[in-house]
Amino acid sequence: MQSAGNTDNMSERNLMTYCPEIRTVDATLRDGGLVNNFGFTEEFVKDLYEANIAAGVDYMEFGYRASKKMFDPKDFGKWKFCDEADLRAVVGENDSPMKIAVMADAGRCDYKTDILPREDSVVDMVRVACYIHQIPLALDMIDDAKAKGYEVTCNLMAVSKVNTEDLDQGLKILAESKADAVYVVDSFGNYYPEQMRKLVAKYVDVIGGAGKQVGFHGHNNQQLAFANTIEACRVGANYLDMTVNGMGRGAGNCFAEQLLSFLKNPKYTAIPIINFVAKHMLKLKAEGVVWGYDIPYMLTGVLNCHPSTAIKFIKDKRTDYAKLYAELMEMS
Amino acid sequence: MQSAGNTDNMSERNLMTYCPEIRTVDATLRDGGLVNNFGFTEEFVKDLYEANIAAGVDYMEFGYRASKKMFDPKDFGKWKFCDEADLRAVVGENDSPMKIAVMADAGRCDYKTDILPREDSVVDMVRVACYIHQIPLALDMIDDAKAKGYEVTCNLMAVSKVNTEDLDQGLKILAESKADAVYVVDSFGNYYPEQMRKLVAKYVDVIGGAGKQVGFHGHNNQQLAFANTIEACRVGANYLDMTVNGMGRGAGNCFAEQLLSFLKNPKYTAIPIINFVAKHMLKLKAEGVVWGYDIPYMLTGVLNCHPSTAIKFIKDKRTDYAKLYAELMEMS
Repeated sequence: MQSAGNTDNMSERNLMTYCPEIRTVDATLRDGGLVNNFGFTEEFVKDLYEANIAAGVDYMEFGYRASKKMFDPKDFGKWKFCDEADLRAVVGENDSPMKIAVMADAGRCDYKTDILPREDSVVDMVRVACYIHQIPLALDMIDDAKAKGYEVTCNLMAVSKVNTEDLDQGLKILAESKADAVYVVDSFGNYYPEQMRKLVAKYVDVIGGAGKQVGFHGHNNQQLAFANTIEACRVGANYLDMTVNGMGRGAGNCFAEQLLSFLKNPKYTAIPIINFVAKHMLKLKAEGVVWGYDIPYMLTGVLNCHPSTAIKFIKDKRTDYAKLYAELMEMS
Repeated sequence: MQSAGNTDNMSERNLMTYCPEIRTVDATLRDGGLVNNFGFTEEFVKDLYEANIAAGVDYMEFGYRASKKMFDPKDFGKWKFCDEADLRAVVGENDSPMKIAVMADAGRCDYKTDILPREDSVVDMVRVACYIHQIPLALDMIDDAKAKGYEVTCNLMAVSKVNTEDLDQGLKILAESKADAVYVVDSFGNYYPEQMRKLVAKYVDVIGGAGKQVGFHGHNNQQLAFANTIEACRVGANYLDMTVNGMGRGAGNCFAEQLLSFLKNPKYTAIPIINFVAKHMLKLKAEGVVWGYDIPYMLTGVLNCHPSTAIKFIKDKRTDYAKLYAELMEMS
């Protein structure tokens, strides 16, 4: 799957070697925070930080930097906002090889004031998340973060709902932007591997052709998050998102313990992550925090819908799946 | 993914049409029976039979036809043996389009006496399961079942442990056998999609080239059972195994509700299966019957080991995953 070569030579990617350009990105606190309203304990966050470093993870995303004008801090855990002081309470000066990321959501972030100059922050990378119609706003956010000194990615969400003409136009604009990487985001867990290979190959052609990296962020609605991640990697995606035990909104994401077991770069090991699962994730699950593959999420994935209806269905402890299917059909 | 054409024209397989040659095979009672020692209620089996018919499933495998000289019927549920009378108590004369299958395990089946002549049985298909070194025995079983009038498949197990020379030789023999179909069986859930495509393509070349069908039976150790099934289908496998809610030994199998949602032949619908899940499978899970993806199975999958060590680990309620990993490394 991975290559010792560069992205110009995709045919070199195979299972007996590795690709040093690959970057693993742990998004547990950010996407997993959508499950428990960012209500992680101090010990959980500190242990995750240390487990990620021990596992050789390249980036750890701590959460969103959301607008406090739009979201009341009393209603959320602290990782919705990722205040500099809260980050430093965990990572200090982050004297480690692992980089720190936060997500800035287009339209839900006061980026001009809340993203500090790079020299005043422990954050290394700002991930700008946007929908296709927000690209002009995203470009301003990318310029802002880049001018402040950060690595910047653009995570173009819900691409399975975007028509090909709009996507081609959007990718051309992003290829000319200052972003270091552009992500394929399968927000609804809708894509099959054969579609994912084609879509990622398009990004690699347009975005990679402009000298930028391509990333992949999957959802597990059809139990395809890991499969799609390694297939995306196969055709040239180098920034690979994952979460511990797949913790993330709805069906969750690509399991970090799986991806780290798959990747052959000797710097990676899944052991600290599976130990973290034993210590923290089993407890979270036992406490009733719910995520992961389930029929309602499978249905929203197949039907290319936002998972919100399925999340509510599961929260309400309903099991009349056929009725949900009928409801979703009306919404599709 | 599916094609309206035939297997000679693989390039026709895409996501906007379907392939009428595809056959879905529900193996819930057989592979799932390995989880609960074949202890299904009468209502479960009857409802599953009816749900499968309503869903358009092509074959339903009821269990093994195991030797009563080797296995004491007092120690197992009835679907370990699939006595003719027990089958008929559920299906009568099976006045339905769905065909009935049983598995005959090489070395664990008194096939000469226990497989009745086709005209005395409600069974349509005998699936001969064997390891590579049992091919001569399997050939005798295939000849026996074929002479008695059955459709016959050969399910060559644990192929991820077989070296290429032996496999090529074995496939050549099976291509010349009387079997109607030969299965790729990923017993340990070890294969990645890119490997699966290559392996299935080899079977399609050798087995398909001899006018036979190719089947696929996956395990979900790396959450790849569904992905590998549809990728196998993409490159020409037509007999596709699945189990309701993925119920099967260890990490289980390809989820029937997912495969039926994926396949585009109008004769298929997942609704009766998801209703069956709501009625029966949630209850089984609540009663403590355990199967499905978990870190111990992921580790045996990655390390290409039999799941038995992981099954015991989970039964013992251990969570010291790192120690299991070390134990498995010694066994690999």
